[in-house]
Amino acid sequence: MKIAFIGLGVMGFPMAGHLRAAGHEVTVFNRTRQRALAWQQQHGGSVADTPAAAAAGAEIVCCCVGNDDDVRQVLLGDDGALAAMATGSLLVDHTTASAALARELHVAAGAVGVGFLDAPVSGGQAGAENAALTIMVGGDDDPFARAEPVLSAYARCVRLLGPSGSGQLAKMVNQICIAGVVQGLAEGLAFSERAGLDSAAVIEVISQGAAQSWQMVNRYQTMLAGEYEHGFAVDWMRKDLGMVLEEAAQRDLELPVTSLVDAFYAEVQELGGGRWDTSSLFARMRAQMAESGSGTS
Amino acid sequence: MKIAFIGLGVMGFPMAGHLRAAGHEVTVFNRTRQRALAWQQQHGGSVADTPAAAAAGAEIVCCCVGNDDDVRQVLLGDDGALAAMATGSLLVDHTTASAALARELHVAAGAVGVGFLDAPVSGGQAGAENAALTIMVGGDDDPFARAEPVLSAYARCVRLLGPSGSGQLAKMVNQICIAGVVQGLAEGLAFSERAGLDSAAVIEVISQGAAQSWQMVNRYQTMLAGEYEHGFAVDWMRKDLGMVLEEAAQRDLELPVTSLVDAFYAEVQELGGGRWDTSSLFARMRAQMAESGSGTS
Repeated sequence: MKIAFIGLGVMGFPMAGHLRAAGHEVTVFNRTRQRALAWQQQHGGSVADTPAAAAAGAEIVCCCVGNDDDVRQVLLGDDGALAAMATGSLLVDHTTASAALARELHVAAGAVGVGFLDAPVSGGQAGAENAALTIMVGGDDDPFARAEPVLSAYARCVRLLGPSGSGQLAKMVNQICIAGVVQGLAEGLAFSERAGLDSAAVIEVISQGAAQSWQMVNRYQTMLAGEYEHGFAVDWMRKDLGMVLEEAAQRDLELPVTSLVDAFYAEVQELGGGRWDTSSLFARMRAQMAESGSGTS
Repeated sequence: MKIAFIGLGVMGFPMAGHLRAAGHEVTVFNRTRQRALAWQQQHGGSVADTPAAAAAGAEIVCCCVGNDDDVRQVLLGDDGALAAMATGSLLVDHTTASAALARELHVAAGAVGVGFLDAPVSGGQAGAENAALTIMVGGDDDPFARAEPVLSAYARCVRLLGPSGSGQLAKMVNQICIAGVVQGLAEGLAFSERAGLDSAAVIEVISQGAAQSWQMVNRYQTMLAGEYEHGFAVDWMRKDLGMVLEEAAQRDLELPVTSLVDAFYAEVQELGGGRWDTSSLFARMRAQMAESGSGTS
C-alpha cells in the first residue's frame, strides 16, 4: 500500500520504519529534512519536500508531530497533507492533541471525502521501536476497519473507542491515571527514604499486592537511582495535562490530584527537569526533603 | 508446634485456620467468644478465656486485632498474652499499628526474653483465606528465621525489612502508594464518564500500558458498577493514613496527595461509606458530578 508518514520524531521514526518492514511504499516528510534523509538511508522509501508532496497519491497518511499547532501546520493549508489527498483515502493522526482539533479535522477531511481517525498512542519510544504500541482511536467504523491492519505494523493493540475525539479523550484518561500513580509512588518512596527503610526491598514486597502498578514495577529502580531519562518527558506531560484540565473545566469536573500533579510538574520544570521523564516527581520530593533537613528520627 | 492466635476477625479467622491445617496445636482467643467457638467448630483446636490463657505454653503467639489500643489490651497487662509467655518464645503482631508501638513492644518483650516481630499483612480477606498474604516484618534476624516457616502457612511472601517498626513503616509505604493510585483511577474514570466514553473499553486498552495498576485491573468493573464491597474498608484506611501522616509530620515530610486523599476518605465517611472499600473514592467523584449537573458538552 502507498502510505505517507509525516513527523519522524522519537516515535514517528521507528513507526514509519515498521511500515516499510511490512512491505508498504512509504514516503516521509519531516520538518528537519536531515532526519528524513537519515530515515531513508536506514529504511529506504522516499523523502518529500512538503506534507502535501508526501500525501499525493497515498491511500493512508499518518501523522505524528508535537501538538495542535504542529498538526495544523502539516495537515492544513496549501502545503498541508489534506490538500493533496484523494477522495476515499485515510488520514490518521497519532499526535496527542486536543479532542476539539480531532473533531475539526474529522469535519475538514470529511468535506473532501477523506476519512479521519484520531489515534494517539501509548507505549513510548520502546513501544514504537518494538512495534508494541497501544493505539486509542476515535472516528468512524469503516475508516477504522481499513486502517487497523496497517496500524498493526507498529501496535500490539489498536481499538476504536467511539466517535471522533474519543481517541484523544481516552489518552487523557491514561494520563490522569498515570499522574496519580506516579505521585503516590513518589510519596511512598520519599516516606520510605525518610523512615530509613531499604526502599528497594520494600517495593519488591509491596509490588506483589494491591499497591502494584506498571510505574512501580518499571520505574522504582531508576527513581531510587535518581535517573529520569527513561521515558515520556515532563514538558510533554504538562502539555497533555493542560489539555486534560481544560477539557475537565469545560465539563465542570474537578480533578484535584491531577491539578496538583500538574503544578508539581511545573516545579520539576523549574528544577530544570523539563526533559526528565514523568517519574521525576520523585526528584521534586527529594529536593523538598533536602531543604527540610535530614528529618530522620 | 504449640501456637496461640489472638483476634479472629475477617483476617485472623482464616489465618488461624491455616495454622491448624498445617498441623499445629492452636489455641485461640477472641473478645467475642461466640466467634472463637465458631472457629473451633470449624477447625478444632482450643478456645481460651483470656489472651494470657491462650499464650500459656505457646512457642509462638500471633495477634491480629484492630488498632494500637486493641493490641495493648490483648498483649499487655495481667490478662495480656505477654505476661504468660515463656522465655525464648515469639510474639508476632499482624495488626497494622504504629511503628512506635512496635518498638515499645519489642522492648517490653525483650525485657522478659521474648522475641517480638511487627508483621502487618497485605492481601485482604481473600489473601487470608487463600493463604496468599504478603507479610512485611520488622525485628531481629533470629526470631524472624524461627517465625518465617510458621507464617508461611498463610503467606505467599514473608520478608524481614529491617529493625523493629520496619514492618509497620513498609505497610505505610504500601498505603501511600495505594492512595495515589486509587484517586488517580477515580479521576480518570470520572473524566471518562463525563466525556461520554465507554469507560470499560478505555480501561481495557489503557491497562495494557504505563497507566496499569493492580487497582485498575481488579477494581474498575466494580467501581463502574458502584459496588464498594470488595476489600479493605475506608474506616481502616483512614486509621492507616492517620498513622502515615503522623509519622511523616514527625519526619518533617509533606505528602500532599496522601493528605488530600485522606481528606477525601473523610468525605466518603460523611457520605455513609465508612464500610465501603477504598475504591469508593469514585463514589465521592460521582457525588460531585451529580451536584454539578450533567456537564456533558
